[in-house]
Amino acid sequence: MANGLRVVARIKAKQDKIEEVKRLLSGLIEPTRKESGCVSYELLQNCQDPTDFTFIEEWTSDAALSEHFETKHFKNAQPHLPELTAEESDIRTYTVIG
Amino acid sequence: MANGLRVVARIKAKQDKIEEVKRLLSGLIEPTRKESGCVSYELLQNCQDPTDFTFIEEWTSDAALSEHFETKHFKNAQPHLPELTAEESDIRTYTVIG
Repeated sequence: MANGLRVVARIKAKQDKIEEVKRLLSGLIEPTRKESGCVSYELLQNCQDPTDFTFIEEWTSDAALSEHFETKHFKNAQPHLPELTAEESDIRTYTVIG
Repeated sequence: MANGLRVVARIKAKQDKIEEVKRLLSGLIEPTRKESGCVSYELLQNCQDPTDFTFIEEWTSDAALSEHFETKHFKNAQPHLPELTAEESDIRTYTVIG
């Protein structure tokens, strides 16, 4: 299987902000996939709980992920999250076992 | 991007059972990938917290995932989890937004 760094990032929308969160996060997909260190970047929505949005990400390295956090698209989206979300984003990095 | 059903399954090992959990979960990879409804099945370990194991899974359908829960390899592993883990497994199903 592929190596590299994985990220699972959970963003919990407020009940009345689901569509706004969906729009905000969807806007990150295209520019993020164009980043040179991005292998894959997929936005998911929980089948049972529509307030649970989750990115599954694959990056070539820690440095590539750090660069992502400095991009204009990421930095533009971030300030909107506190008003739209029910809790702080849960961003976890992983290595692949198999 | 690919369609289908995604699963993010978190298994939290007890601090002194990390290697046993790793072995148990790793044993699921090969037989699960052979299931006809399995598109991908990857086992991850949290970079900051080695007790956090996470499967990222892709299935062709709900029915394929239901069949997975009925397989011999899954059913053989499951009874070992309560003694090895610190909390109940957190299994969430997702649809792909983009």
